[in-house]
Formats: sequence, structure tokens, C-alpha cells
Amino acid sequence: MKELEAKILREGEVFPGGILKVGSFLNQQIDVPFMMEMGQEAKRLFAGEPITKILTVESSGIAVGFAVAAAMGLPMVFAKKHKSLNLSDNLLRSSVFSFTHQTTYDIVVSNDYLTSSDVVLIVDDFLAKGNAIVGLLELCEQAGAKVAGAVVAVEKGFQGGGDLIREKGIRVEALARIESMSDDSVTFSN
Amino acid sequence: MKELEAKILREGEVFPGGILKVGSFLNQQIDVPFMMEMGQEAKRLFAGEPITKILTVESSGIAVGFAVAAAMGLPMVFAKKHKSLNLSDNLLRSSVFSFTHQTTYDIVVSNDYLTSSDVVLIVDDFLAKGNAIVGLLELCEQAGAKVAGAVVAVEKGFQGGGDLIREKGIRVEALARIESMSDDSVTFSN
Repeated sequence: MKELEAKILREGEVFPGGILKVGSFLNQQIDVPFMMEMGQEAKRLFAGEPITKILTVESSGIAVGFAVAAAMGLPMVFAKKHKSLNLSDNLLRSSVFSFTHQTTYDIVVSNDYLTSSDVVLIVDDFLAKGNAIVGLLELCEQAGAKVAGAVVAVEKGFQGGGDLIREKGIRVEALARIESMSDDSVTFSN
Repeated sequence: MKELEAKILREGEVFPGGILKVGSFLNQQIDVPFMMEMGQEAKRLFAGEPITKILTVESSGIAVGFAVAAAMGLPMVFAKKHKSLNLSDNLLRSSVFSFTHQTTYDIVVSNDYLTSSDVVLIVDDFLAKGNAIVGLLELCEQAGAKVAGAVVAVEKGFQGGGDLIREKGIRVEALARIESMSDDSVTFSN
């Protein structure tokens, strides 16, 4: 999606350790009208798939997941990162290692909201090592849900997570795919 | 908003301690097309106000904040609940006591994304004791931003937070306002 690449070049900032800060439009502050366009692009990419539900993980996935769900007219479920008082015990659960925060956390979804009758499109903001999406795939497997694929706003191709997931036979689409990053430049694939 | 009241009666569950679980459409699982209608209702309520930005707090506020921002064609900023590696040190910060989780946490926003040129509409899913919204008002005050008001999906009127904030001179609108709740019934105001 060329408009997203242009926005990353114009507004993104690169920090040491392969961290791309896009807090001005994709994270923390969100350019909602633009993200609605990203949702339309995801809808176009997965047109014809019998998707019943969008699945993402809190909290940075919620906005982009919502935009995709709005474009497709579907419900969204987001996995929580820790057990809440408001959740029952009927939980699907998986462990995820966070590259950004260097910690392992659990992601959980109530089994009321993800079932064997669902066809899921996984959505997230970033795909780096792929750990979050692997965790979401595990939740789908526990639920017996089918997975139509995954769509992410930004894939850091050089960190290998996308290829790892594609090798599992899962379709992965990135609205922008970064091939390499240095202190003063970002290069996209294709 | 009568459709929201009907949905709460149909799909909500009441738990001991004044907890209303609406995880099937407002939290965890989100009825996105319906939430987009809630966004339109918020737009109607605040029509004519020179709002520049939607402000909410992760993670349960993000979806409804996004829906309001999409209806109004505005950017959204969400406060984070702990300092992230991806944030700079130029932070607006406030402390919030969570009634649900019985803990105090900090909420932070980069001062790049909330400034004295903003006119803010605060959005959240629930308004109970009002602590989260008071914290968001403090961030606006630190930034020198104007506040047009606050809109919440569900106000638990009997917990007093809404009245507390209205007494500060802040306009607060609830799409559904619960007057009382017991194990087997929910009663709305008006």
C-alpha cells in the first residue's frame, strides 16, 4: 500500500535495535481516517474468503483490527494479555515472547468468542519475529477455528517472522513490508 | 441510545460487586458495525463543537474511541497504562485507581500528541467511579488542551463518577446510563 509506505517515510522514526516508531499515526496517536483506508485494503486482499471474525491482540492491534472489521462488517475479538477479573475461566490461552519488551506473557480469549464455527482473519499492527501471530494461531487451533490468513500493517521482513508463518501454510499479507532499516533510511520490498 | 440499552439487557451479564459483563459486544468481542453506530450517536451529541482529537485509554477504550473518531473524521490518541520502550521521555502522566482491578496505575501520553492547540473529546467504554476520566482530564490540563466533554458507552450512574465529573463543569454524555443493577435486572435512567 503505497500511501502507507509514504507515511512511514514521512512520519516514522528509526531507533537502535530495529525499532520503528510510528506513534504519530499507527500507535498511540492513530490517524483514524487513514486507518479506515487500510481496512478497505485488507478487505480487498481477502475478498471472497468466508471470514466470520477478526482476531487481534491488545492493545496495539485493536485499532487496526477494528478498521478491518469495520470495512468487512464483521465482529472483532481481541486477546487479552493477562487474566482479568471480568473474564470467566473458560479461556483459550497461549504464551508469547515479546521482542520489544523482552518478556513472556500469556494471551487469552474466552472460548465463548472463538469457536469451531469461525473462519478467522488475524490482524496486527506489526509483524517482526512473528511471536504474537503464532500465539493467535495457537488460540485458533485450540478453538478448532479455521484461519483464512493474517494481515498486518507493517511487516519487518528482515526479522523473519512473516516467512516463518508462511512456511506453516498460512497466508500473510503486509500493507507495507520493510526489507531493511538503518538509522537514516527505510527500504521496502518490491 | 435505545439500541444499546436493548443490547445490554439481551447480552449483558451482571456479576457480584456491581460488575456488568458485556464481553460479547463491547469488550473482548466487539460488535464493530454496532459500535460504528454508537460513534455516529456520539458525533450527533457533540455536533458543532470544534473538536480536534479523540482521547481514550488502553485497552478497553480503544475500540469505542476509534468508532467515535471514525464518525467524526478525527485522529485518536490513547493513553498507555505503563511506560513503554517505544516512548520518549516527554510524557504527560497521571495516576488512576482501578475499581475493577483494585490497583493504581499510571496513564501516559507523549506531549507530541496532546497540545494546547487541541480541543479534546474524551471517550471510554465504562464510567463508574470516574477515575479513568479524571486521569484523562489531568493529562489535558497538563497539555493545556481544551476539553469539549466526555462520552461513554455505559455510565453506571449509581457509582457516582459521572456526577463527580459534571460537578467540575465537564459535559458528560452516556449512550446508556444505568440507574441500578441487581443480580437479575438492569434499570436505565430515563
